[in-house]
Amino acid sequence: MKQVSKSKISFINSLKLKKYRIKEKLFVVEGEKIVSEVLKSNLDIKLICGSPEYLEKNEYDLEKFQDLVFEAKPEEMKKISSFVTPSNVLAIVSMPESRNILYKNEDLYLALDEIQDPGNLGTIIRICDWFGIKNLICSLNSADLYSPKTLQATMGAFLRVNVIYANIAEEIVKFKNNTKNHVFGTFLNGENIYKSSLPKAGFIIMGNEGKGINKNLEAMVDKKLFIPSFSELDIHAESLNVSVASAIICSEFRRNL
Amino acid sequence: MKQVSKSKISFINSLKLKKYRIKEKLFVVEGEKIVSEVLKSNLDIKLICGSPEYLEKNEYDLEKFQDLVFEAKPEEMKKISSFVTPSNVLAIVSMPESRNILYKNEDLYLALDEIQDPGNLGTIIRICDWFGIKNLICSLNSADLYSPKTLQATMGAFLRVNVIYANIAEEIVKFKNNTKNHVFGTFLNGENIYKSSLPKAGFIIMGNEGKGINKNLEAMVDKKLFIPSFSELDIHAESLNVSVASAIICSEFRRNL
Repeated sequence: MKQVSKSKISFINSLKLKKYRIKEKLFVVEGEKIVSEVLKSNLDIKLICGSPEYLEKNEYDLEKFQDLVFEAKPEEMKKISSFVTPSNVLAIVSMPESRNILYKNEDLYLALDEIQDPGNLGTIIRICDWFGIKNLICSLNSADLYSPKTLQATMGAFLRVNVIYANIAEEIVKFKNNTKNHVFGTFLNGENIYKSSLPKAGFIIMGNEGKGINKNLEAMVDKKLFIPSFSELDIHAESLNVSVASAIICSEFRRNL
Repeated sequence: MKQVSKSKISFINSLKLKKYRIKEKLFVVEGEKIVSEVLKSNLDIKLICGSPEYLEKNEYDLEKFQDLVFEAKPEEMKKISSFVTPSNVLAIVSMPESRNILYKNEDLYLALDEIQDPGNLGTIIRICDWFGIKNLICSLNSADLYSPKTLQATMGAFLRVNVIYANIAEEIVKFKNNTKNHVFGTFLNGENIYKSSLPKAGFIIMGNEGKGINKNLEAMVDKKLFIPSFSELDIHAESLNVSVASAIICSEFRRNL
């Protein structure tokens, strides 16, 4: 088995930074579960780097990637890993082109307005996958889909959800031009989500962790919603995590399907 | 203003480890928002360590803690911080005694069976706070409430939710002896949660991130529930994050209140 070279190690390491991922149009997935999903996908694999144990155990699955497979010693895996506990395999993958969304009457869409935390973004992609939301729109200044923390939190769901980075206002115009459906968002002065009659399809905006939905998008929302708190205490529960709020909203839109 | 000493810095650092937190019965909260909530709470504060800017800005609120307040330079804050981006204040706090739960007919209880990730635990405490669940039971081998990542993810909600570490089976026996309510858990062969008629009160068990609910507890569940996936793809969404699943379940129990 070919050993991973020093120059490959430093190349893999460079991909920890967004600017090099963009320049090379490559990203890194790490961990047995996610690598195994990527190997089964249509994505273009550029390199696989694993521990001797991993490579031996997965010999059969790796056969068709033969020239791309390299062995790494534990200390080398530690160098290239993005995590505190390095896993025993990682793969370099070509970024697929993101697909423009063709808005349809029967679909539900989710948009994230300046989500900052990669863990939240990844968790929300996993939520989209679960609730059959095929397209996720992120504002241009949102967290990076290809950061290791985002990919990790998706648990592979990024392979099944089309994530695009775009101007959300422009996407809403396209959505309005192509469907007869409404735009929803959560606001403190919105209607109790549990008492609202929600449609099967539409466009939901979730706001930034700290400051919520931007004013220019708020003006484009047809129906403001609100998740009520059930805390009885005087000192109120202040807010829900944005991924938790996304889950509750998606659940409410889907529960009557 | 008194400067933080080297010995205090190394003492604060020791509290990053669970064994020293338990030995000293102390924990550390970090960040302006959470420290400000702790200062307003009934907790016993042992030390406050902040940047000159923080101490100046919060002079009035800190007056009654005078002897406990120390100034730290940026490089000292960096040393004692548990986070990549150090905040400008942290406080050492006495661990409060956890209160035994007196199970009541009208309350909803949540139990976590071997939750491993501190971020998940903290997010679930925040969910309990939001949904008015006053008591959270963690199995003895669950993630630590007082780890910096857990506290951070609670966003202060740990001040409002009573978290106990206990044998869940024994707690269920107490719950059954003191209420006429049922025990719920999520399982792949459970009833669709959206079609189930859920009561206002009860005892909900959430399982470990990887292996779900332990067999001995499964045997004590009165009603098995299931959160259905709406993914249309052949390759299924595999699972929901445990904190996301907890949020959806709590939302379903509360939505008809």
